[in-house]
Amino acid sequence: MTANPAWDDRGLVPVITQDVSTGEVLMLAWANADALEQSMATGQATYWSRSRQEIWVKGATSGNTQKLRRIKLDCDADALLYQVEQTGAACHTGARSCFDAGGVLAQWGGAQDDEEKP
Amino acid sequence: MTANPAWDDRGLVPVITQDVSTGEVLMLAWANADALEQSMATGQATYWSRSRQEIWVKGATSGNTQKLRRIKLDCDADALLYQVEQTGAACHTGARSCFDAGGVLAQWGGAQDDEEKP
Repeated sequence: MTANPAWDDRGLVPVITQDVSTGEVLMLAWANADALEQSMATGQATYWSRSRQEIWVKGATSGNTQKLRRIKLDCDADALLYQVEQTGAACHTGARSCFDAGGVLAQWGGAQDDEEKP
Repeated sequence: MTANPAWDDRGLVPVITQDVSTGEVLMLAWANADALEQSMATGQATYWSRSRQEIWVKGATSGNTQKLRRIKLDCDADALLYQVEQTGAACHTGARSCFDAGGVLAQWGGAQDDEEKP
């Protein structure tokens, strides 16, 4: 690995996962060094599950895998962006995106003001 | 506020900020309850600066403001998505997105395989 993330005091960084073809933000999860290394080695989006305290290959049980197309680091190296080809739903609720499952807290303007991107 | 984020042990949640018209992921930052409340009241993307330990109205000094269009919560309520109209650069480096400033850690396939979305 050429650039190293600035791992937090738990050895983690947040990971934003985005659909590479639509731009939709699918989920936010976490990676430790092992999860990032495994992602880079396999091309399959891999995370650290904070609840289960274990490496989590997305879709390993559900089949809703994420084929990596690109991993980017942000300017201060404390966040990752996984751009993926998503199979099926990203969210455990069955929603395409986890942000379709939690609700809209606030909205300004109507949907007609959107260019109807994600 | 109808739904409440599940604040972490520091009273924060990560916030993904996305350009509402292009879908581009611009940055990852953090919010506490005050930052979220102020965002909802003003329609201007507001964060908690962990380095400065203060409320941070995006663009207050740079002029590169973010007009909020939508705030979404994820399925387990521990991440926020701000969809914004970005003025100028989102990144302090001058890059449009913070994820253009940190480097590509890995890539699979060529750019020609992209549908050239964000």
